[in-house]
Order: sequence, then structure tokens, then C-alpha cells
Amino acid sequence: MRRALAEAELAAAHGDVPVGALVVHDAEVVALAHNRREADRDPTAHAEVLALRTAARALGRWRLDGCTLYVTLEPCVMCAGALVLARIDRLVFGADDPKAGAVGAVYDIPRDPWLNHRLEVVRGVEAEACERQLRAFFAERR
Amino acid sequence: MRRALAEAELAAAHGDVPVGALVVHDAEVVALAHNRREADRDPTAHAEVLALRTAARALGRWRLDGCTLYVTLEPCVMCAGALVLARIDRLVFGADDPKAGAVGAVYDIPRDPWLNHRLEVVRGVEAEACERQLRAFFAERR
Repeated sequence: MRRALAEAELAAAHGDVPVGALVVHDAEVVALAHNRREADRDPTAHAEVLALRTAARALGRWRLDGCTLYVTLEPCVMCAGALVLARIDRLVFGADDPKAGAVGAVYDIPRDPWLNHRLEVVRGVEAEACERQLRAFFAERR
Repeated sequence: MRRALAEAELAAAHGDVPVGALVVHDAEVVALAHNRREADRDPTAHAEVLALRTAARALGRWRLDGCTLYVTLEPCVMCAGALVLARIDRLVFGADDPKAGAVGAVYDIPRDPWLNHRLEVVRGVEAEACERQLRAFFAERR
């Protein structure tokens, strides 16, 4: 999660909300990404989606079983849906997102028995550091 | 929707589930895309996500207000979440997806008052032709 936090700083550097993500496979980091919505003017360029795409490219397959995604903020609906589609094994996240989170806040997509894949979820890892980073970004913008 | 159906055929040609999408802005098609999950080995390469990214590139902005997305199949959780994030005005879709649809079937993401954007939804447009195309694809695979 320390690496995801450092990656998130790169997003803040170009005016994007600081969210960082990485994908680990066989104890190796196969993808590292940060939020680029503003930088790329792409509504889908969240850290998680970019990390999943990079990991799939690195492994040469769209099924990411055997992988864990780490992210500094609770994923939104789009990203949680993407994690399920990628059949990833595990999600580890830092700060909760009470307004738009789809992993326990507004929805709980990764553990919905109606969808065709479920994943293990670990929340609250380095949560304080993740929240601090987000708060600092928004405080500076006001 | 006829153009979305023709676009979906291109997906079937490379072994992907035939789903086609397009984005219209000011009565002009600014993006046209089809499902490329298998072709690109990318779990996020659904027709809708690809169309949103192309439209954002064409218009030079991630906020797609003033746009309508047409798609042959009811969007999944990821795609419905992406439509909300893109602040798109309107979604028009063909066939229902009772197993994984997130626009009335399993979830109703685009009309959820808890999320920060809602969109107009029109369903069932050319539904029979869209269903027929999907059924033909799966029948051939069996």
C-alpha cells in the first residue's frame, strides 16, 4: 500500500484526485497506475481500470485469477464491476468512500452472490495515510 | 441501433460476444465501438467503455453531457458505472441482460439517487434483432 500511496502522488501532480493502484501476481508487481481522468480527459481512467488493463497486458490474458489489486481508495461502481469482470482473486483497499464506494458503502459489488464472480476483500489497510493524502489534496484546492 | 448492430458483428468476427455501441453528440456519431475483450485480452474492453473513451477523445473532455450512448445489450455494472462517471445524458439499449444487467436487471445504476449523476434510459429498442444476434452467436459456439 506504500507503493500505491507513492503512485497516487503522481496523480495529484497533474491535478487528478490522488488515487493509486497496483496489481500483484506471484509476489511480483505486474501493474502500477494512478488516476488520470483529468490528464487524459478520459472518464474511465481511474487507477484501478488502468492497473487492470496493464496487468492483463503483462500477463497476456484478461482473466486475472491469481492476482491481488491494491488501491488507496474504495473502488467506485465502474471499478468494482471491472474487478469482477477480470475475475481477480483479491482486493485490498485503504480509505473508505462513503459517497461513491461500491465495496461496502453504497453497494457491495465484489461480494454480490448474483454476479458470476466473487472476490476476497480486505479494507482499511493504511487507511489513515490514504485519507490524509486525499484530504490534503482537497484542502489545497479549496 | 442499426449501426450498433452492424458494429457488433465485427466483435463476433473475432470471437467476441457481439455487442456494439455508439455515442451521438449533436446528431453526429462521435464514437463507434464493439466488444474486444478476447481480441485485446482486456477485461475492460466492453463496447460501451471503448465508445466512451473514443467519444471523450473526439470531444476533448471527459464530461459527455449532450451525448447519448446506444448499445445493443443492457450494460453491465462496470459499463453502467462508467456512463454515470462520464455524466452522459442518455442511454438507449436493445436486449435486456437478466443475468448481469445493471440497468434494471440485477441493479439500476443509472437511476440510483445515491450516485452523483442520473441519466435518461430508453430500453428495448430493436430488442428482437439484438437478442437474435446474441442467440445466433452462442448457438454457433455450442
